[in-house]
Amino acid sequence: MNLILLADRDRVDASCVTLTGARATHLLQVLRVTPGQTVRVGLLDGPLGLGTVDAVSDGRVTMRCVFETEAPPRPRVDVLLALPRPKVLRRLWAQFAALGVGQIILTNASRVERDYFDTHVVTEACYRPLLIEGLQQARDTRLPQVSVHRQFKILVEDRLDDLFPSGVRLVADPSGRTSIANALTGRDERVLLAIGPEGGWNEFELRLLETRGFTAVGLGPRTLRVDTACVALLSHVHSSLA
Amino acid sequence: MNLILLADRDRVDASCVTLTGARATHLLQVLRVTPGQTVRVGLLDGPLGLGTVDAVSDGRVTMRCVFETEAPPRPRVDVLLALPRPKVLRRLWAQFAALGVGQIILTNASRVERDYFDTHVVTEACYRPLLIEGLQQARDTRLPQVSVHRQFKILVEDRLDDLFPSGVRLVADPSGRTSIANALTGRDERVLLAIGPEGGWNEFELRLLETRGFTAVGLGPRTLRVDTACVALLSHVHSSLA
Repeated sequence: MNLILLADRDRVDASCVTLTGARATHLLQVLRVTPGQTVRVGLLDGPLGLGTVDAVSDGRVTMRCVFETEAPPRPRVDVLLALPRPKVLRRLWAQFAALGVGQIILTNASRVERDYFDTHVVTEACYRPLLIEGLQQARDTRLPQVSVHRQFKILVEDRLDDLFPSGVRLVADPSGRTSIANALTGRDERVLLAIGPEGGWNEFELRLLETRGFTAVGLGPRTLRVDTACVALLSHVHSSLA
Repeated sequence: MNLILLADRDRVDASCVTLTGARATHLLQVLRVTPGQTVRVGLLDGPLGLGTVDAVSDGRVTMRCVFETEAPPRPRVDVLLALPRPKVLRRLWAQFAALGVGQIILTNASRVERDYFDTHVVTEACYRPLLIEGLQQARDTRLPQVSVHRQFKILVEDRLDDLFPSGVRLVADPSGRTSIANALTGRDERVLLAIGPEGGWNEFELRLLETRGFTAVGLGPRTLRVDTACVALLSHVHSSLA
């Protein structure tokens, strides 16, 4: 935890918060805070700040916080991801939030198993704490927005222009002859990056994405597992935007 | 499995192999091969090729293989990694092999827990099958070389010039003001990339690496978990070399 993320319900008043549970345990047992010490804090979807420990008792930590005037900008990259295996998705949530994504659009695809949609890992109860873990790792406060779509065609044809109204649309595919860096040279809009299932998008899906403005980008000759590819691709998009 | 990796012990003669166990099961139950079908094969640390299924019986698959004349080149990137937590290292082995590394040099560092060295995940019995899994994912045959060093100073001062005699030495650190792409512009030698523990290299380690020719490179303002950072960094080095 490189940052303690605070929610509105932690606040006693405008500047004072009281923490119990996992964050208090981390402060007490890992950072071993004592009154007077400062720690980095952030308000969920709000500004970063500094907290000064006021009192420590019975596993509770009370801090006075000073926040910056503005929240950090939302990460400029969104992800459209064919729903991966539950085990893989569980690992990805925190990594997405740490690498920085504005929204995560999960979709069905021909090579996605239908029953992946019925698992716990696509529920907010599962992913929210994992996203917060990733934000605390990367010192960000901006919780990615998540939406889940069971019909690829309806998503891409009817919903995507609302979810991602303008910006650069990229689809990762081995057929892509353009690198991410080249595709993004001179662009300063938001980026939507589509990543297919293990086994890839099928022809229909790829063509539909291309008719909706997606450019195919490649990451070289080596075929990577979806979770490895997600980290590599997102990190490339971020460094191409920097 | 995008490639079936063969070892010398699988060979019946120069072109014929018989497979049992996990690879045979994959051929029979996932790829559902029948005689006459071809599959991509590779000889461990040797050339890629094509196998034509000859016979299938009792969970055994016999194939005739034709190999290319040369093995693929060894990946041009080596990694010097402060030994991560066993759970993290277990996840990394296959990803390293899939992304492509020539050798993996594991080292102690001030922020590494000593008992990490005594776990199963640093034994060849554990990592070899995971490396092979990564090679089969990425269609490579070159098994990364692995060495484990319990003393950072002795490794860096006395052993490193043998392990990595010439090339570009980079150390990932938030202090790095240079990007990987900039550090590698115009360089076509091998690259050694040093990645520290959770919590980073300490001052002494960083200075020692710098006196031994390492340039600090950064990956932007977000602090990533070691496993996420490894994938992101390696992928950046590869695309900067491409």
